Amino acid sequence: MYIIKIGGNVLDNPERLQRFLIDFAALPGPKLLVHGGGKIASTIGLQLGIAPQYVEGRRLTDAETLRVVTMVYAGLINKNVVAQLQALGCNAIGMTGADANAIPATKRPVKAIDYGFAGDVGGPETINATAIQALLQAGLTPVFAPLTHDGKGSLLNTNADTIASVLATALAPFYTVKLVYCFEKRGVLANAAEDDSVIPHIDEHTYQHLKATGVVKDGMVPKLDNAFAALEQGVKAVLIGEAEALPELIGGGSFSGTTLVWHHG
Amino acid sequence: MYIIKIGGNVLDNPERLQRFLIDFAALPGPKLLVHGGGKIASTIGLQLGIAPQYVEGRRLTDAETLRVVTMVYAGLINKNVVAQLQALGCNAIGMTGADANAIPATKRPVKAIDYGFAGDVGGPETINATAIQALLQAGLTPVFAPLTHDGKGSLLNTNADTIASVLATALAPFYTVKLVYCFEKRGVLANAAEDDSVIPHIDEHTYQHLKATGVVKDGMVPKLDNAFAALEQGVKAVLIGEAEALPELIGGGSFSGTTLVWHHG
Repeated sequence: MYIIKIGGNVLDNPERLQRFLIDFAALPGPKLLVHGGGKIASTIGLQLGIAPQYVEGRRLTDAETLRVVTMVYAGLINKNVVAQLQALGCNAIGMTGADANAIPATKRPVKAIDYGFAGDVGGPETINATAIQALLQAGLTPVFAPLTHDGKGSLLNTNADTIASVLATALAPFYTVKLVYCFEKRGVLANAAEDDSVIPHIDEHTYQHLKATGVVKDGMVPKLDNAFAALEQGVKAVLIGEAEALPELIGGGSFSGTTLVWHHG
Repeated sequence: MYIIKIGGNVLDNPERLQRFLIDFAALPGPKLLVHGGGKIASTIGLQLGIAPQYVEGRRLTDAETLRVVTMVYAGLINKNVVAQLQALGCNAIGMTGADANAIPATKRPVKAIDYGFAGDVGGPETINATAIQALLQAGLTPVFAPLTHDGKGSLLNTNADTIASVLATALAPFYTVKLVYCFEKRGVLANAAEDDSVIPHIDEHTYQHLKATGVVKDGMVPKLDNAFAALEQGVKAVLIGEAEALPELIGGGSFSGTTLVWHHG
């Protein structure tokens, strides 16, 4: 099965989103979509008088911000994606990690920084894989918004890359899972200024080298850390590339982005 | 199974909502919740510079208003209800009629009035009962926000009473369905000014009389029209009463609201 993460930049552009959803709907077999947030949450938050706050690239989620992201991620974005997929013949069902108790999480402990209602996801054993399998077996395509819950009644804001990798890992015992990160670049780049400098394959050893030399940095580090953890725990393949190139990514042709490789044993 | 509709007035009051959800979570067997909108959508719409417009008690849903109700109904309200039910041990899954293609609808035709993105639901045969049954059989409790979709990519704003009655009718061939409308009154009142003047039983003949004499009027008419149509089409019972009295309504004791009765044959 395919687990596809689609980034916020694509969500912010209706034409790009529509093209991506056409390709996603056409994928055969069981599949699952995880979407990010996009800038619309910040825009609507500002209209409501709530300025976004970031520390070290992470959004602080106070109670008001949680309300905004719940409205935008789980309402506006998620349900419009579902309605568009339905129009494309894909029987989507929109969810957060609270729905079907799919993704329990814990509120991030307050240390030097209080991230507010940010959710940290546990290991794949914490995922309610049984419920997700029941949906897939009913012919449904789950579409996850980047929210989880604490089991005590509160939703939590959670990184979409993390959600995609933990879902992939949790479903790996039951399906041959390929995890695909779609974003605005063609893949992991050797030179950030060169769109064509895609590194076609990265294994866990070259990854350590790329991190040490600063070729891979910033937001790409947690994304790839998660991805390699997923490979180590049984996910069959991780592909990273442009949203517009989904068929090529899946097909493994040229312009096929970056494939992460794990050498087992 | 129980299909419970909870009105907007209860959603606007966190303490009343919490009490209701405790009672709902405690109901045994398969169950399904449909929630209304509440005033919060108007409040947030106004903050975003979108004034609500009504014609004959019906809200006009222009494109901007559709965005607001999608955020508030399917995001803020639906996901917080789901998270609260999860905390109460009820494995809820929040949905709109777009999710799992559960409730296809058609955009209301423009005649004297253009209601905008308002969805008219068809007969029970249009409901995707198979998908809803799959969720129930997986031990999940669907929680519906009052939105449907047109199958062409657009969400539609739809009356929650109508959604509850069409779901009840569509599931009646497979379950013994009791439909319960919970709102802020103790039942259908003989005298609107007297909270204690609950009419304990109404059958289809007395209903015609109550309508003709104006005892039942305004918003109660479409609610009861829907309810009697559901009874005629196989729903076992319809109960109408106060959200706080859910256990009494279900139990059939005193203070048990109004029971609608259909004399088959």
